[in-house]
Amino acid sequence: MHRYRSHTCAALRKSDVGSTVRLSGWVHRVRDHGGILFIDIRDHYGLTQIVANPDSPAFKLAETVRGEWVIRVDGEVKARTDDTINPNMPTGEIEVFAREIEVLSAAKELPLPVFGELDYPEDIRLKYRFLDLRRDSLHKNIMSRTKIIAAMRRRMTDIGFTEFSTPILTASSPEGARDFLVPSRIHPGKFYALPQAPQQYKQLIMMSGFDRYFQIAPCFRDEDPRADRLPGEFYQLDIEMSFVEQNDVLSTMEPVLRGVFEEFSEGKPVTQEFPRITYDDAMRKYGSDKPDLRNPIEMQAVTEHFAGSGFKVFANMIANDPKVEVWAIPAKTGGSRAFCDRMNSWAQSEGQPGLGYIFWRKEGENLEGAGPLAKNIGPERTEALRVQLGLDDGDAAFFVAGDPKKFVSFAGAARTRAGEELNLVDRDRFALCWIVDFPFFEWLEDEKKIDFAHNPFSMPQGGMDALENQDPLTIKAFQYDMVCNGFEIASGGIRNHLPETMVKAFEAVGHSRETVEERFGALYRAFQYGAPPHGGMAAGIDRIVMLLVGAKNLREITMFPMNQQAYDLLMNAPSDVSQAQLRDLHIRLNPAKKEL
Amino acid sequence: MHRYRSHTCAALRKSDVGSTVRLSGWVHRVRDHGGILFIDIRDHYGLTQIVANPDSPAFKLAETVRGEWVIRVDGEVKARTDDTINPNMPTGEIEVFAREIEVLSAAKELPLPVFGELDYPEDIRLKYRFLDLRRDSLHKNIMSRTKIIAAMRRRMTDIGFTEFSTPILTASSPEGARDFLVPSRIHPGKFYALPQAPQQYKQLIMMSGFDRYFQIAPCFRDEDPRADRLPGEFYQLDIEMSFVEQNDVLSTMEPVLRGVFEEFSEGKPVTQEFPRITYDDAMRKYGSDKPDLRNPIEMQAVTEHFAGSGFKVFANMIANDPKVEVWAIPAKTGGSRAFCDRMNSWAQSEGQPGLGYIFWRKEGENLEGAGPLAKNIGPERTEALRVQLGLDDGDAAFFVAGDPKKFVSFAGAARTRAGEELNLVDRDRFALCWIVDFPFFEWLEDEKKIDFAHNPFSMPQGGMDALENQDPLTIKAFQYDMVCNGFEIASGGIRNHLPETMVKAFEAVGHSRETVEERFGALYRAFQYGAPPHGGMAAGIDRIVMLLVGAKNLREITMFPMNQQAYDLLMNAPSDVSQAQLRDLHIRLNPAKKEL
Repeated sequence: MHRYRSHTCAALRKSDVGSTVRLSGWVHRVRDHGGILFIDIRDHYGLTQIVANPDSPAFKLAETVRGEWVIRVDGEVKARTDDTINPNMPTGEIEVFAREIEVLSAAKELPLPVFGELDYPEDIRLKYRFLDLRRDSLHKNIMSRTKIIAAMRRRMTDIGFTEFSTPILTASSPEGARDFLVPSRIHPGKFYALPQAPQQYKQLIMMSGFDRYFQIAPCFRDEDPRADRLPGEFYQLDIEMSFVEQNDVLSTMEPVLRGVFEEFSEGKPVTQEFPRITYDDAMRKYGSDKPDLRNPIEMQAVTEHFAGSGFKVFANMIANDPKVEVWAIPAKTGGSRAFCDRMNSWAQSEGQPGLGYIFWRKEGENLEGAGPLAKNIGPERTEALRVQLGLDDGDAAFFVAGDPKKFVSFAGAARTRAGEELNLVDRDRFALCWIVDFPFFEWLEDEKKIDFAHNPFSMPQGGMDALENQDPLTIKAFQYDMVCNGFEIASGGIRNHLPETMVKAFEAVGHSRETVEERFGALYRAFQYGAPPHGGMAAGIDRIVMLLVGAKNLREITMFPMNQQAYDLLMNAPSDVSQAQLRDLHIRLNPAKKEL
Repeated sequence: MHRYRSHTCAALRKSDVGSTVRLSGWVHRVRDHGGILFIDIRDHYGLTQIVANPDSPAFKLAETVRGEWVIRVDGEVKARTDDTINPNMPTGEIEVFAREIEVLSAAKELPLPVFGELDYPEDIRLKYRFLDLRRDSLHKNIMSRTKIIAAMRRRMTDIGFTEFSTPILTASSPEGARDFLVPSRIHPGKFYALPQAPQQYKQLIMMSGFDRYFQIAPCFRDEDPRADRLPGEFYQLDIEMSFVEQNDVLSTMEPVLRGVFEEFSEGKPVTQEFPRITYDDAMRKYGSDKPDLRNPIEMQAVTEHFAGSGFKVFANMIANDPKVEVWAIPAKTGGSRAFCDRMNSWAQSEGQPGLGYIFWRKEGENLEGAGPLAKNIGPERTEALRVQLGLDDGDAAFFVAGDPKKFVSFAGAARTRAGEELNLVDRDRFALCWIVDFPFFEWLEDEKKIDFAHNPFSMPQGGMDALENQDPLTIKAFQYDMVCNGFEIASGGIRNHLPETMVKAFEAVGHSRETVEERFGALYRAFQYGAPPHGGMAAGIDRIVMLLVGAKNLREITMFPMNQQAYDLLMNAPSDVSQAQLRDLHIRLNPAKKEL
């Protein structure tokens, strides 16, 4: 018989009754039922109930074992009596009568119980992560994570993509977030950087003649702690394709991600055909480029109903500034003064002067718009609004006015708030869409200049011609995001593979050709020697796993996370290093100055 | 029709003749056959021949294209005439008559030709890696590499292993090689380290209740340039299992690696059942713990034949020191004075006084041992040696004498030399074996102390009892290597999961309990709370790929390697960073002092 086990702790069934078996695992729980000991023994695969009574030669030792000891048990499989069968356990029809027990490893008193999964402070959980990970829920999440990643890999391979690992010790890249730096021992005063993403490498792979790349790619950004991002490293499903247009990338990746969601959604419906929504439409309808489409509310512009109306606040704004618009947030079932007032108070708590509204109710046979706005604009305009918004008895609409650029994010928040408060959001599904046609440039008000709105490597729609002849702020990029339930889960673009167009785009934001050569030398150089049209995207694996397992915190889906202060309590990292190590790396410490 | 292609450059066959197609790719080669242009167009998948004659509307443009331009070609598939069919090309039965050509990206004059694969200086190849990688042989190697890794992953998954990624920003580990360090911005004066291997993490995964882990793991060692290791990062197939003994790991991993070798050996035979050779036997038979078993020579101890013999040099050594042994290196077909003298000269060039030998030849009907040694020890002993070594007419044997510890590596080199010179080595196969029972400790002559011979985390055979009661230098470890054709391709062990045994082992080499706690805190802590017996191994992916594709240099199987000075010529890494970045990381440069 094997030294440690003949079966895993999840393997035994009624058909095994009578056999002599050997199990090894952790003591999950010990119960003493009047002199009979029940020990649940646990391994990676499951649980089995061990029984020892005073007749058992193992009884004396069995009395001494405690939670999380690792033991080996030899014994006989017995059928449980009908009243003790546990239908919730795969091994619930049997138990193992212990003949011999060996303690493979004892455990000290536990700083963190495994059984029962009591809530415990995070620093204890991270310091004793090896205990925390034994808990059923975390164990399950981590296994789901690995299965989701394996499914992504399988699906990418199945459609002809090849996985390439790109270097982790690479060049500092001046765009984007802060780099983690690695001092070079061999080249004094020089530093490697950990890649924020394999963006340049994956484009270089296309220049190198490979066609369909993917990678489960570790990415590194030295960012300040944020609730939705672990400090340090995170993973992307990174892909790139040659000889493609935007539609090729979208129609290649949509089935992959839909498939992954369907595989792990546990029956929750997943969008079958992802709507492709332009950035402009998304902002107008949802007040966000990451719309939660489970919320059915779509905003509409209703400016003309207020222009010249008796609601002078809006009417004057509209008259005085052609940029002013009024947007309506229709809220089905929101038609009560109590709800409308609650929304108004919420708006004030968000720093707004208030939130105008109309709600509709039956007065006898008549449908009537109620609230101060309705009074001011009169029944005809109120009715025209109702008809445009498709509302009825018991519904409401909220109104925001001004320069849409300035109010759009508040309007989006109000849409979200109304949808959630009214329970209009169907939480039990995964609503996916594409956002396309992002603006290529944006206006930086503070610096009074334009800059790249997103990825400087994207191809501007219209190419060189657009850069030369079009108002830059109207140029769109071949750039797209995939959004699920209000979260951006992937982002990508068709790349600018033409060096002169690249230089022109950088010049538009005030950078010279020399800057391009210096910052993106490899890519710029590669573009000179036969560059295929190419594009791709990167999907955030951590976010996708969180959505699929329903985790609220990245630490619930990460095996060995750092804490929010970028400290690894398990390994004690970062830590001090020796003077000799510093000397080898040609650096000295520069202690923080005391605040003045 | 798709914007860029209806088919890849490897897709068209005779059955496509008559269709109108669109191809995109790189101009591989242009030939002008008296006014008719033949353009080989290349993509990731293959090559297709494009034809343009003056009747073609695309002819004028076709005349301008040059090597490595990226073009789109529309045209008609035509059958080649019988005499122009190229049976070596999958598309060799057809060609495409160009109707329209679009230049997608021109190329400047190439610093490195792609077609023809001329030998070029390495710095040019690395700077223009995107051109180098387009060359057929490198493209093939890189694709083989990814396929080999995919096969490893598939085989591990198929036998129930789960892939977990372990952190890349972790703690500095004082054992082993030099760490790459990453200064922390948030914790002034502290440093993360990149993992030299996920050794501690994989053991912690076992402590955490997961059972069968693997990872295609990036590892980082800041080592001085070596021919057989790229600076910076390398990859391991890293595995760990719980509730196992040594035989479990060996019999689990042997089919995986054998399978990978068989899948990619291109028909070369692969060892079916890996011999398990003890470290002591390997040293005695092959003079190496990395024996090349394709070399059939096995050394034998022949001390008694020289003890008290007429060959006084050996006889006196044996008489004066009980540690002295004489080993024979039998060399079939080496029985000529010319060869034996060549071996002798080689030994002298290696700093040895010479290499004694006997060779056998027929004198009439008699088989006679020739050479000075044979004369000195006389015909009886010579014949006894011949019989023991199983040699015959035309064979030779070489002899080394002394303390085997001191001569063993020279003896191993002589074995290798003889096998190679005599063409006894069968180069066209993969000879795999396990080396087991490595010594746990070794004697450091310089420091007059014992130290761990290999991995301090291994379990000593005999456990605590051996540590307490046995001469430490006789203790073996549950530690094993996998060797292929003379290269160590994997290494592993059963771990010491008992904290007291771990402390005892460290004490034996002069470290206190406190040192263990400080250096290996996480692991030591985890061992206190229920640790399963566990073990595993790590296989060197780069080495395995090199063996399988027959590459002589790691840069031939690595997509974006650094040069031997740990410099990335493509990305210009490492590079200068700004004062602001250094300030953020609380470090200053410490310029190298001039040599005194």
